[in-house]
Amino acid sequence: MPQYTPPLRDMQFVMHELLNVVDELKMLPGHEDIDAESINAVLEEGGKFAAEVIAPINLSGDAEGCTLDKATHEVTPPKGFKEAYKQYVEGGWPALSCDPEFGGTGLPHLVNQFFYEMLNSANQAWTMYPGLSHGAYEALHAHGTPEQKATYLPKLTSGEWTGTMCLTEPHCGTDLGMLRTKAEPQPDGTYRITGAKIFISAGEHDMADNIIHLVLARLPDAPAGSKGISLFIVPKFNVNADGSLGSRNTIFCAGLEHKMGIHGNATAQIVLENAAGTLVGQPNKGLAAMFVMMNAARLGVGNQSLGLTEVAYQNAVAYAKDRLQMRALSGPKAPDKPADPIIVHPDVRKMLLTARAFAEGGRMLQAYTVLQLDKALKSDDEDERKACDAEVALLTPIIKAFITDNGWLATSHCMQVFGGHGFIHEWGMEQYVRDARINMIYEGTNTIQSLDLLGRKVLGNNGATLKKFGKKIAAFIEEEGTNEAMQEFVNPLADLGDKVNKLTQELGMKAFGNPDEVGAAAVDYLRVVGHMTFAYFFAQAAKIALAKKDSGDPFYTAKLATARFYFAKLLPETASLIRTARAGLAPLMEMEEALF
Amino acid sequence: MPQYTPPLRDMQFVMHELLNVVDELKMLPGHEDIDAESINAVLEEGGKFAAEVIAPINLSGDAEGCTLDKATHEVTPPKGFKEAYKQYVEGGWPALSCDPEFGGTGLPHLVNQFFYEMLNSANQAWTMYPGLSHGAYEALHAHGTPEQKATYLPKLTSGEWTGTMCLTEPHCGTDLGMLRTKAEPQPDGTYRITGAKIFISAGEHDMADNIIHLVLARLPDAPAGSKGISLFIVPKFNVNADGSLGSRNTIFCAGLEHKMGIHGNATAQIVLENAAGTLVGQPNKGLAAMFVMMNAARLGVGNQSLGLTEVAYQNAVAYAKDRLQMRALSGPKAPDKPADPIIVHPDVRKMLLTARAFAEGGRMLQAYTVLQLDKALKSDDEDERKACDAEVALLTPIIKAFITDNGWLATSHCMQVFGGHGFIHEWGMEQYVRDARINMIYEGTNTIQSLDLLGRKVLGNNGATLKKFGKKIAAFIEEEGTNEAMQEFVNPLADLGDKVNKLTQELGMKAFGNPDEVGAAAVDYLRVVGHMTFAYFFAQAAKIALAKKDSGDPFYTAKLATARFYFAKLLPETASLIRTARAGLAPLMEMEEALF
Repeated sequence: MPQYTPPLRDMQFVMHELLNVVDELKMLPGHEDIDAESINAVLEEGGKFAAEVIAPINLSGDAEGCTLDKATHEVTPPKGFKEAYKQYVEGGWPALSCDPEFGGTGLPHLVNQFFYEMLNSANQAWTMYPGLSHGAYEALHAHGTPEQKATYLPKLTSGEWTGTMCLTEPHCGTDLGMLRTKAEPQPDGTYRITGAKIFISAGEHDMADNIIHLVLARLPDAPAGSKGISLFIVPKFNVNADGSLGSRNTIFCAGLEHKMGIHGNATAQIVLENAAGTLVGQPNKGLAAMFVMMNAARLGVGNQSLGLTEVAYQNAVAYAKDRLQMRALSGPKAPDKPADPIIVHPDVRKMLLTARAFAEGGRMLQAYTVLQLDKALKSDDEDERKACDAEVALLTPIIKAFITDNGWLATSHCMQVFGGHGFIHEWGMEQYVRDARINMIYEGTNTIQSLDLLGRKVLGNNGATLKKFGKKIAAFIEEEGTNEAMQEFVNPLADLGDKVNKLTQELGMKAFGNPDEVGAAAVDYLRVVGHMTFAYFFAQAAKIALAKKDSGDPFYTAKLATARFYFAKLLPETASLIRTARAGLAPLMEMEEALF
Repeated sequence: MPQYTPPLRDMQFVMHELLNVVDELKMLPGHEDIDAESINAVLEEGGKFAAEVIAPINLSGDAEGCTLDKATHEVTPPKGFKEAYKQYVEGGWPALSCDPEFGGTGLPHLVNQFFYEMLNSANQAWTMYPGLSHGAYEALHAHGTPEQKATYLPKLTSGEWTGTMCLTEPHCGTDLGMLRTKAEPQPDGTYRITGAKIFISAGEHDMADNIIHLVLARLPDAPAGSKGISLFIVPKFNVNADGSLGSRNTIFCAGLEHKMGIHGNATAQIVLENAAGTLVGQPNKGLAAMFVMMNAARLGVGNQSLGLTEVAYQNAVAYAKDRLQMRALSGPKAPDKPADPIIVHPDVRKMLLTARAFAEGGRMLQAYTVLQLDKALKSDDEDERKACDAEVALLTPIIKAFITDNGWLATSHCMQVFGGHGFIHEWGMEQYVRDARINMIYEGTNTIQSLDLLGRKVLGNNGATLKKFGKKIAAFIEEEGTNEAMQEFVNPLADLGDKVNKLTQELGMKAFGNPDEVGAAAVDYLRVVGHMTFAYFFAQAAKIALAKKDSGDPFYTAKLATARFYFAKLLPETASLIRTARAGLAPLMEMEEALF
């Protein structure tokens, strides 16, 4: 069975050496008293929960899956899931970054992000239950009426109730404008909702007393398309005025999907038959309200693949040090053993280092972005809030798509290190690959993310936000311009920055001529910009590591080696990506539809 | 459930227009009477078998898997597998390319290769049962004694008996020199074999009357390492002198693996307890004898991923034409429908065309290689036999690794086209991804293939074989030097050829300094050479398509479009690969083992 050790040291490096998060967070109202020691202590405890409580039920949860009782519509998650959730609630973990007004601990999102990375490493399928709840919490916190907040937020904060987001229908996923679920207004101001939803993660289970479904539906006279969608709270059990549970609402699980991965999470088909609900936010503005949840969820999905990348790496390293097979081509490295451990082989190291660099790079990018999110939400300076919000909006599709694509590559490499054993369930590696695969699809496919980045976030404002981010990179390059030891990092970074500028301009011009040029280049473009962010953070990490080179702490030696590996072996992917992005639309459209 | 249509038209193109196989095959003793019509007719019938008999039991076979009765050690494959095998035998399919001396039909391997592509598209797990048998047939045909051949080959040819290859043990897969299974000579010239084997595909089942295991084991006084390994026939049921079945031999299935994919194939743990066997070939030369089987198997594994790529492509196209979601960025393409079919979106086309180009490229490379194999085995000119044999040896690791890596990318892309539905079992797409994953591992991991290519097949003879192949490419480029319309193909091909030459020389020099440089560059190098072969074949295909441009046959329009797509969007991967290959060993070795 796979093992997991929370990467606390690297998290501390990112927080306290790379990003100086305490100095930044202290400036924010509500976080004045934050300090490194308490953050570290929280994450240490959180890591224990992840490693000791939910990691041990990951493999068995995958084998067992969820069970639906068709008569009662009740779902039983795999053995141990309910008990682990109980411990989670008792430990107060759901409240970590929730609003103190509703019983939350009020810690920054940043801390929650690191905590969730560890949960995802330990057990993505389990983590989706509290993860979806937290998304529902965020949406209600942003858009609920005072009454809705008072009724639902304390229960979601305590974890007594969980939440879901019910968007997709059989005929529409990406294109939510087509959805058909209907909401009929009632004389008492509530609604009766009827329709069928699919792919509802954590959609039904017995782990919490109630499940608060956030459901997109259409009012009777709603305009067609995405401008006619409203958001509703539809609880599994109706909630009485005093907050106690009332009758069973007519929202049911009609089936569970048989999936490639995340077997431990109940992916439910949800049927609503005149189910009682209340409106969240304005009529016909449901999609905007839901986007609060979706943006948080997209960061969360990147974090899922970050977690899987880390845990796959750790287990592949352990195997590569242990497994004896063949001699190094340059001569025996362990002559006393019947063969060398496979970590001597350069390509095994390449696979391991790829996963390591993707994990470390992803961690830096996620942490930086979520720090900006904390500032966007809490800063008392409106300009800063706006600037941070724009930066988060720019980086969110990169986190979702780049980190999940990397996670697929990394988990597959780590599985490959195990040879034939990687294909066998009991080693746990193939589960990471299967679980990682969904992250490229849900919460907006990675193609959708790339269109969001290039079409909306970059070209949509003439590259202004990207340029602002680019100025930070340029300032760093300028700063290190005379630092001899840093040239191996800043030169390729500067070169890539120039290329991104040129490519962006070129694509902007092309898109002006034909908007489909955006779709032809967007996926390649997103990976190029993703690499630019990774290169920027690895260069900064290398600077710190170089300064600490003589400290005797091997952490910095390893950090420098990983940064060098990244620049030598992963960053060059951009050479191809820029070529294929520039190759444009024509090679994709030459074939008529009928000839496919 | 997925659908499958045998790509007969493209197979005919490759055979009769690209490779002129009939002219080549007619020159070989035993194939003088071959003609295009009968080859086409056989493949048409074979395609029907694949599409109508085994494709329908692929998805259900994956869901059901194999069952072991621990008391009897008997394995039951999924429902329908046994009946399909019966039809396969009754149709005479196992005999297709077998030696007429033992009851075979004596058709070229090339025909069998195309037939197997279709079987693999339809059901890889099922196809492994006859596939392993055919490998055992090849090994015995090449190395068996006349008695062994007389006893076993007719039964393997008819399909009454099946075969396996028993190599791997728990502590050794790649490094077979470490294997421990022991063979004790008996006074009557037979052997008693004891040991434990794992990962034995098609290792136990009830589909045939007997299973002929080819087992690697060590004689009592054998030298250590790979020079002390011998090959034995160990049948499930002992065979009497008259060829009838005797007592149950003491070779048993002790367990079945729970795997990521190919659930319908029984991956057996095989225990031998003083099992009776006979020696194949010379004592201590078992690895060489087994390599006959392994080389055939490596071509076969490439063919598995070719089949999966094709079928995944077909189903993704059907879905992309059917699924309505969003409008094209350039404006509605199906204004009468609620949304456009997703095939209008450039990135969906890119994913589809990637799979299509990988399928068509793989098909050309496989067919070319297996044609050389037919010549290597049958030509009456010894020089030609040697030259073809060397070329097959060069191309085999490329087929195994390049086509299976491409198959993983392609099936994953095709699954992505389905969005969330791609992750759900009933659509069948995620099964293709899971099944395709093993092909990168077994019969020598893709890292091993790359070491075989660069270390042995290229640098091992100072690049002589590669240069010979390069001369064919150069001749084609020369020939098309004045053909204006061909410049878009031959210029990048010529450029890549030059780069491969330079890279090969550079790596040869580096390897001279440190053999580990081979391991550092080999995986990237193999993909670069793989692309060179694809570019060579796509350029030839484009030439034919250009000549037939005005024929009115849309097949050629599509072929040209696919070739252009390949050159514009896939070939540029080499730009990155060459960079990372040249980045060499240092970035991989900087990190000490303890710091991983």
